[in-house]
Amino acid sequence: MKGSATNTFGILTSGGDCPGLNAAIRGVAKAAYGLYGMKIIGINNGFKGLIEDDTGILKPEDFSGILTRGGTILGTSREKPFGKVKDNDFSVDMKLDAIKENYKKNNLDCVVMLGGNGSHKTAALLKEQGLNIIGLPKTIDNDIYGTDITFGFHTAVDIATEAIDRLHSTAHSHNRVMIIEVMGHNAGWLALYSGLAGGGDVILIPEIPYHMDSIKDHLKNRAKSGKQFSIVVVAEGALSYEEYKMDKKQLKQKRKDPGYQSKAYELAKDIEDKTGMDVRISVLGYLQRGGTPSPYDRVLATQFGTVAAELLYKGEYGNMVAREKDDIIAKPLEEIAGKLKPVPQDHILLKNARMVGTCFGD
Amino acid sequence: MKGSATNTFGILTSGGDCPGLNAAIRGVAKAAYGLYGMKIIGINNGFKGLIEDDTGILKPEDFSGILTRGGTILGTSREKPFGKVKDNDFSVDMKLDAIKENYKKNNLDCVVMLGGNGSHKTAALLKEQGLNIIGLPKTIDNDIYGTDITFGFHTAVDIATEAIDRLHSTAHSHNRVMIIEVMGHNAGWLALYSGLAGGGDVILIPEIPYHMDSIKDHLKNRAKSGKQFSIVVVAEGALSYEEYKMDKKQLKQKRKDPGYQSKAYELAKDIEDKTGMDVRISVLGYLQRGGTPSPYDRVLATQFGTVAAELLYKGEYGNMVAREKDDIIAKPLEEIAGKLKPVPQDHILLKNARMVGTCFGD
Amino acid sequence: MKGSATNTFGILTSGGDCPGLNAAIRGVAKAAYGLYGMKIIGINNGFKGLIEDDTGILKPEDFSGILTRGGTILGTSREKPFGKVKDNDFSVDMKLDAIKENYKKNNLDCVVMLGGNGSHKTAALLKEQGLNIIGLPKTIDNDIYGTDITFGFHTAVDIATEAIDRLHSTAHSHNRVMIIEVMGHNAGWLALYSGLAGGGDVILIPEIPYHMDSIKDHLKNRAKSGKQFSIVVVAEGALSYEEYKMDKKQLKQKRKDPGYQSKAYELAKDIEDKTGMDVRISVLGYLQRGGTPSPYDRVLATQFGTVAAELLYKGEYGNMVAREKDDIIAKPLEEIAGKLKPVPQDHILLKNARMVGTCFGD
Amino acid sequence: MKGSATNTFGILTSGGDCPGLNAAIRGVAKAAYGLYGMKIIGINNGFKGLIEDDTGILKPEDFSGILTRGGTILGTSREKPFGKVKDNDFSVDMKLDAIKENYKKNNLDCVVMLGGNGSHKTAALLKEQGLNIIGLPKTIDNDIYGTDITFGFHTAVDIATEAIDRLHSTAHSHNRVMIIEVMGHNAGWLALYSGLAGGGDVILIPEIPYHMDSIKDHLKNRAKSGKQFSIVVVAEGALSYEEYKMDKKQLKQKRKDPGYQSKAYELAKDIEDKTGMDVRISVLGYLQRGGTPSPYDRVLATQFGTVAAELLYKGEYGNMVAREKDDIIAKPLEEIAGKLKPVPQDHILLKNARMVGTCFGD
Repeated sequence: MKGSATNTFGILTSGGDCPGLNAAIRGVAKAAYGLYGMKIIGINNGFKGLIEDDTGILKPEDFSGILTRGGTILGTSREKPFGKVKDNDFSVDMKLDAIKENYKKNNLDCVVMLGGNGSHKTAALLKEQGLNIIGLPKTIDNDIYGTDITFGFHTAVDIATEAIDRLHSTAHSHNRVMIIEVMGHNAGWLALYSGLAGGGDVILIPEIPYHMDSIKDHLKNRAKSGKQFSIVVVAEGALSYEEYKMDKKQLKQKRKDPGYQSKAYELAKDIEDKTGMDVRISVLGYLQRGGTPSPYDRVLATQFGTVAAELLYKGEYGNMVAREKDDIIAKPLEEIAGKLKPVPQDHILLKNARMVGTCFGD
Repeated sequence: MKGSATNTFGILTSGGDCPGLNAAIRGVAKAAYGLYGMKIIGINNGFKGLIEDDTGILKPEDFSGILTRGGTILGTSREKPFGKVKDNDFSVDMKLDAIKENYKKNNLDCVVMLGGNGSHKTAALLKEQGLNIIGLPKTIDNDIYGTDITFGFHTAVDIATEAIDRLHSTAHSHNRVMIIEVMGHNAGWLALYSGLAGGGDVILIPEIPYHMDSIKDHLKNRAKSGKQFSIVVVAEGALSYEEYKMDKKQLKQKRKDPGYQSKAYELAKDIEDKTGMDVRISVLGYLQRGGTPSPYDRVLATQFGTVAAELLYKGEYGNMVAREKDDIIAKPLEEIAGKLKPVPQDHILLKNARMVGTCFGD
Repeated sequence: MKGSATNTFGILTSGGDCPGLNAAIRGVAKAAYGLYGMKIIGINNGFKGLIEDDTGILKPEDFSGILTRGGTILGTSREKPFGKVKDNDFSVDMKLDAIKENYKKNNLDCVVMLGGNGSHKTAALLKEQGLNIIGLPKTIDNDIYGTDITFGFHTAVDIATEAIDRLHSTAHSHNRVMIIEVMGHNAGWLALYSGLAGGGDVILIPEIPYHMDSIKDHLKNRAKSGKQFSIVVVAEGALSYEEYKMDKKQLKQKRKDPGYQSKAYELAKDIEDKTGMDVRISVLGYLQRGGTPSPYDRVLATQFGTVAAELLYKGEYGNMVAREKDDIIAKPLEEIAGKLKPVPQDHILLKNARMVGTCFGD
Repeated sequence: MKGSATNTFGILTSGGDCPGLNAAIRGVAKAAYGLYGMKIIGINNGFKGLIEDDTGILKPEDFSGILTRGGTILGTSREKPFGKVKDNDFSVDMKLDAIKENYKKNNLDCVVMLGGNGSHKTAALLKEQGLNIIGLPKTIDNDIYGTDITFGFHTAVDIATEAIDRLHSTAHSHNRVMIIEVMGHNAGWLALYSGLAGGGDVILIPEIPYHMDSIKDHLKNRAKSGKQFSIVVVAEGALSYEEYKMDKKQLKQKRKDPGYQSKAYELAKDIEDKTGMDVRISVLGYLQRGGTPSPYDRVLATQFGTVAAELLYKGEYGNMVAREKDDIIAKPLEEIAGKLKPVPQDHILLKNARMVGTCFGD
């Protein structure tokens, strides 16, 4: 440990379950413990465990054999220390005091946090409060600003694509339009990738508001050319042009309406109305983020984890580990916090997709 | 072809898409053509194609390489010649006349029909009308009377189990109750098998009406023993004891109500209300019946297909091919038509499941 | 535990790794512990652990979450207490004394053994020696006498079929004969099932000696009909007619020759020589028996496990749990020990396979 | 087609089968035909088809539905027009004359070639001869100079990793060293990626000559720390330090020796001799390059294909499509021909792998 800036650090997973969390934990732990001899404190159930001092020492047997396992051995929660206080029991101030106290009590030199967008915002705020913190970008949405890719994303692409493959045969056999709704409230990466991989005929993403008429024309043209079936891949956050023009409050209202089930249902009704075609829906839901990580994500999570260990060693706190081009680097938390990474309008994949005939409804 | 009772036969797939249809078509065709030299007429889109004379000769290249392919190369429809006439264009009589005419016109000695329960009822009625017909039992529900197993079932079990595996990690990481709804309106085979294979803690099937209180107790007991998460596998047709006591009309009414989404949603609300636990839902839907058949189903469908070819050769028309114990046999259509095969209350699997701690809510 | 014949039992896994071992252990343990409150002693590394008293109490947390996991949490070995004594350190008598002593020392009322053919022979001999023992039939070969099916088999079929699927595209693209060698020294179940599921053109199993000329004719005929590629699925123990006529000693000699690599290599050379076709080989090896069990095997292993627990409860020792038709029953160990279950010459699957054009080389 | 430099082009697949070939063909064809209205000539079985004028027009139905299919609809061969002439029937000159003649005869403006290293060398030479040619980099080895990635690679990583996962359970259950040999004669990308994804304890690649003693020490240390099993992932072209020092001719000689089976066998013997451990081997072979492409490869192949169509449109012939960072670009064939892309000694993945404890034997 000689020369290491970090003697002891805590590690927690925050936000939704995501494939690769255990692989990343193992990456951090194997390098930090095996190479540098650091002491590792597992913090249970996200920031909740830091507030409630629900912790325990991680030993080699704890992170052995977890590379392939889904979920997170540490448990997770959506606790946001700076967020709204639901039950009034704890104010933000009380939570922060608890966090600082437990940070000290556990002799932490740093907290390694595996989380998504919201969690990195929290991390940046804790940095402001004087805590040493290092973030690792996990989310199946791939929408974290500052990194080309997040772990969990490609596993979700694999799952969604396999689902599209299955729906293809049903669509074909029944001459149906099958709509598959995948995750992605703010970014369409998952819909775009899995849609292209699955040969989706229409792909709808939040970044490109769609016109029902363009979709109708596309489906009709396919039917004319002899293809009576079509696959529509839609991100849950996709917006019609009408929704796009609404103010956000109005839109939120609309989607909270008990009659509104999800984007796929709305779309199905619209397509049936406009085309008279037989439409079916599949909402992929939680399947997209559970289970064993894909090889791609295992490698990526391992890389992120080992680089985090290096930052711990060097004392380069306050950063998120990120991939930029082919390199794994460190990005200051304040630079990335609160920002999103939507699919850019000029992204090459959009161009490629259009060239093979994908309709985006624009 | 010397000695063959059948010179020419038609083949059609009827009802919902199901893994193994192409494997079965290939099995029939390879044996009937390769061994016996019969002429094979493909009838498109189920009974619709027979009514509309939408047919074509099947040649070896048509059934080569389709063993592993999902869907059906013949297309399918839910057309029921004896069923309600939707659009008044065709009366049942007109349809039957068309069927008989096209049967003759195509010089058919028999029609081989791959279908589920409803389609076998149709087949039995066509038999009554003097047509030669042979049925092959396909359905992911495994609920066809007269056969121990149907092709498509084990593929659906594989898909549902993989989904349960994925949800397990999310349930565990978040300390949640995850409800997964699988297909099965009238029979719980799929929920029972996949639930047991996936280690479901609660399995709800139409055959065993459930008491919410039993489920609550079970989940609470698990929580007490340290397992804060649970997996509930529910067939779409599962019934609470209250529903079970309703008359059928009343129940149908209830489920048609726009506020009623599906069994999983209702259950989620009930469990949240009764236990205060965090519940999430996944409705598996169409994923369960698309895509490449599992090896088990490829073998079974091939077996059914070759036995159908043998029946064609021998002129043993009017039967459904069925598996009974380890044998593949022929069952007269009138014996099986209109009957269901629910999970028997004393089925050994129910006993085995209970022994490892599965709660059925009874 | 009142009324239970068994208070304490040991459990061990013996012989080669096999998917479903953990599922079966969990089945036994959940029922025996949860329903009947028995004490469970895990015996490590097969009979070796019984000889060396390498044991430990199994607690609920040990068998929780292992349903889907490959391998065996108990470890396994090929130790045969009645077998040849390799290193002279222990005679058979010494081993038996140790086994009896440790059986007593651990207060065992019975030993549950998960094993294949050889291990069940051992179990029968231990029964003769006065030990209570219950066997569970595991093997990917499905060759255990007295049970219709063994757990592990269908997982191996899935793995082998997936491999055949992959080889198909290479065979097709390159106009090659691809030979895939699967496990099966004495029985061809795995080759037969996976070969049929994968659409193998030639399937060679130990039960049907093959003539190279029949294979040659079949491949040539396929080529003539425009199919320049073929898939040959061969069990490692397949025999040419010449080998079949050899005495066993001679055959053993031949296969021990350093120049003899495996059946697939020999076959490749023969086919190239006889047909001039381009041949490639794939020997599947250990892949066939590792990893997570298929849903089918998880259910079967769970069933076997729970029935074993019931036998423990009732004191019905000295049996192997077996499936016969659709029932799970108990078979006296002495009835099944030392016998094999080859594919019968009149097995229906052989007939079905031949009907779709499979060549067995006979 | 107005404004398009290309009216008609030929397309061929050359060299070994590789997942994603059909996806790439579809990508080229959908864009070239759908967007630009070009005429597409399919050339069968690689350069062989160009020499023998074995061609046919590709129509939309030919490239519909092939995105997910393994192999290549065009067939492939290892024919190298500039290579050694095996059977003396055709000299290089005769082949070139035939190629030029058929190029003209088919009115080709360009040939799109999907191939690996050797095929791109051929492409560069044909460019020198005045032919318009565009290359697409396919190989599971990922060793084509000038592009960050090739399609086929990640599918092979997925297959190899799944195999390693399966072997893990066997290794663990039996306390064995399992050696898995993956493809890679000249580059270790596949071994490195799959080894890291599968948690390999030792990874041996051609780029880093290994010392048996380092491996021995690593395995012994693992055993000391309680891990009696280990996974060794080895590229077929891995070199011991002794082999590394040999001259190439000598090494070639050694590997051609009938007693030399493959690197895995040699390694197994060495490890058994040095450590006394129980070692088993799995040679993955052809499984690595057949079957449906992974979603990653489908997207990548589609991208490469659409960019190739764009180059056809613009008349930017003589290039290989390549990915550089996040962009898809064109690289002049002469710049990349004859060069390899081994894993650089300072590649970040090597560093990451070492940090989690991977032994490279150096």
